[in-house]
Amino acid sequence: MNDSFLRACRREPTEFTPIWIMRQAGRYLPEYRALREKYSFLELCRTPAAALEVTLQPLERFPLDAAIIFADILLPLEGMGVEFGFDQDDGPCIGSPVRRPADVDRIRVIEAEEATPYLFEAIRQARAALQDRVPLIGFAGAPFTLASYMIEGGHSRNYEHTKAMFYAEPKTWTKLMEKLVEVLRRYLLAQVAAGAQAVQLFDSWVGCLSPRDYAEFVAPHVNALIAQLAEARVPVIHFATDATSLLPLIKDSGAAVYGVDWRIELDRAWQIIGHDRALQGNLDPAVLLAPPSIIESRARDVLQRAGGRPGHIFNLGHGIWPNAPIENVAFLVETVHRLSRRSA
Amino acid sequence: MNDSFLRACRREPTEFTPIWIMRQAGRYLPEYRALREKYSFLELCRTPAAALEVTLQPLERFPLDAAIIFADILLPLEGMGVEFGFDQDDGPCIGSPVRRPADVDRIRVIEAEEATPYLFEAIRQARAALQDRVPLIGFAGAPFTLASYMIEGGHSRNYEHTKAMFYAEPKTWTKLMEKLVEVLRRYLLAQVAAGAQAVQLFDSWVGCLSPRDYAEFVAPHVNALIAQLAEARVPVIHFATDATSLLPLIKDSGAAVYGVDWRIELDRAWQIIGHDRALQGNLDPAVLLAPPSIIESRARDVLQRAGGRPGHIFNLGHGIWPNAPIENVAFLVETVHRLSRRSA
Repeated sequence: MNDSFLRACRREPTEFTPIWIMRQAGRYLPEYRALREKYSFLELCRTPAAALEVTLQPLERFPLDAAIIFADILLPLEGMGVEFGFDQDDGPCIGSPVRRPADVDRIRVIEAEEATPYLFEAIRQARAALQDRVPLIGFAGAPFTLASYMIEGGHSRNYEHTKAMFYAEPKTWTKLMEKLVEVLRRYLLAQVAAGAQAVQLFDSWVGCLSPRDYAEFVAPHVNALIAQLAEARVPVIHFATDATSLLPLIKDSGAAVYGVDWRIELDRAWQIIGHDRALQGNLDPAVLLAPPSIIESRARDVLQRAGGRPGHIFNLGHGIWPNAPIENVAFLVETVHRLSRRSA
Repeated sequence: MNDSFLRACRREPTEFTPIWIMRQAGRYLPEYRALREKYSFLELCRTPAAALEVTLQPLERFPLDAAIIFADILLPLEGMGVEFGFDQDDGPCIGSPVRRPADVDRIRVIEAEEATPYLFEAIRQARAALQDRVPLIGFAGAPFTLASYMIEGGHSRNYEHTKAMFYAEPKTWTKLMEKLVEVLRRYLLAQVAAGAQAVQLFDSWVGCLSPRDYAEFVAPHVNALIAQLAEARVPVIHFATDATSLLPLIKDSGAAVYGVDWRIELDRAWQIIGHDRALQGNLDPAVLLAPPSIIESRARDVLQRAGGRPGHIFNLGHGIWPNAPIENVAFLVETVHRLSRRSA
C-alpha cells in the first residue's frame, strides 16, 4: 500500500513527496469527456458506478498518491431543500437564492444518508476497488463557500448579497451558517463512515473577505465544524483559495493540513501556518500549459520551498484546467516523484 | 484650496484624513445614470464636456478631497490599433485578442495627443472648472492589466492565455509589455501636461500571479514605467487589487503612494510597504451596503490602523458599487472627516 499521502498528512517521513491533483477526475481527461457524452454532470455524481469509474480514471494514467471521490460541493444542498443545477459553462445555478430570514428558516437539516445515499455508496465502492492501493479523500464545500452560492445564486464577483446579509442581518447569517455546519458535519462523518480516509474542506470564495469579517462571520463556524470532525479520526485538509491575508486566522481552524494556492510562496505560507501542521500545494495550474522545462523548474521551486520537511503534499493551487495537456500532467507527477525521492 | 490629498501623497500633515472614492463618478449617482441615457459609456469618455460634467458630479454632492478625471483604462488601446467595446454588463470586449507574435508586432505606438485628444481636453477643462478647489487625479491601467485584457479579450477567470504567453512566448510577452510601457508613459505624461496633479496606476488583475511570475514578467515593466514618470513631478499612486502576497515586491515599484484593498489590514500593509511611502485605502465597498453603525465602526477601524500617521488617504479598496446608497456615501465622507480631524 502507498500510504505516503496519509503519512504526509501526519507529518511523518515519506520516501517521496506525495502528489494528487485537485479535479484530477475531470474534463482534461478524454475518458471523462467521453462519459460526459452519456451522463450529465449531476448524473455522474448520482450514479455510484459512474462516479466510481471517474474517480479511478486518473489513477489508471498517472501514479498519483491519492484518489478523491468524484462529487460536487453543491450535492448537500438538495437535502437542505435548495434546488440547484449547472449552466452551459458548468457554473452552478441556485433556483431560489436564500436571502430572507424565511428562506433560512425553510432550510432542512436531514440525515446525510437520506440526502445523498449515492455518494456514500460511491465511496464504499471506490474503497473496495482501490484495495488500499492509495487512500481515498472525501470532501465538502466549507460553510462560507456554500452559503455564498446559496445567497448569490451562483458565481459572484462581489458577494454583495452575502456581505449585505452578514452586515445587515447578522442573526439570519448565523442561523444559516449553523445549519450548514450541522449538515456538513453529518455529510463528512458519513463520508468517513463509508470509507473516506481524509476529508478536504474547500473554502473557494473566502478570499473576498476582509480579515475582520472572516474572524467575525466565518471563523467561528468553520472552526466549530472542524472541531466536530475530530471524532472521525481522519486528517482534515482546510483549503482556502486566494486567502493569503487570512492565513494568520485560518491557521487556527484546527485542521491537520492546510492547502494554499500559488499566490504565496510555499515557505512563507508554512511559516505563517506553523510547521506543526502539514501543507498542501501549490503550483499554479497555468504552469501545466508551459513547456516541460518550466514545469520542472516550477515544481522544483515548490519542493525546495518545502525544504524536504515531512508534511508536504504536492498539489496544484487550484483545480486542474480542462485544457491541461495529458502529457504535461504525466510529466509533473513523474517530476515531483523523481525530484523528491529521498536517497535510500 | 483644499490640498489635503496632495499633502497626504507627500506624507505631510493634514488637518483631517483626505478621502476620495474610486469610481466616485459613476453609476451609483442618479445624475450619472441620467447622462448615460443620452450617451454610451464611450461617448461620455470621448466628449470632453460630458466627461467634465461627470467628473464634477460627485463633488457637487460630497466634500471629497480630490477629483478624478472620468475615463476608462482601455482608452489608450484605440491608438494602439486594438479595437474594443463594452458588453451589456459594461464588461470590456476586445475585437481581436492579441495572442500571436504578429498581433504584437502590429500594435502601434503613437503620440498620446493623437490617440486620445478628448481626454486631455477634458482634463484641461476640469482643471479650469475646479479652480484649485481640490486636486485632479489622472489615471491609467497598469501594463499587466491592459496586457491581460488585450490577450484574453475581456474579463477572465484564469488569465490562461496571458500566462501561456509569458511561459511559452516570453519574447512576445516582453515586446507587448515594452510597447504598453511606452504608450502609458506618453499617455500619463500628457495627462500631467494637461493638468493632472497626481496619477494612479490600476493593476486590477495582477493578483492572479504567483510572486515569482510577478517578479519575472511584470515588475520590470511597471517599475520602468514609474521610473519614467518621475519627470512629471507628480505623485504616482500604485494600486494593485487582491495582491497581498505581492506587496513585498510591489513596494519597490518606486511609487509615492500605494493603494491596497480591504483584504489586508491597513497597518499590516503599511508595515510591509514601509512608512516612507503614503498609503491609500482600504474599506470594503460592501460596507456601504451596511447600516450606518457598521460604516462608522469600519471607517474608524481603518483610521485607527493608519494611526494618525501623515500619508494616509482614505478610499475604498475597490471601485464603489452601483448599488451603494447615496446617503451612505455622504455619511462615510462626513465620518472620515469627523473622526480624523486633528484638534487645532
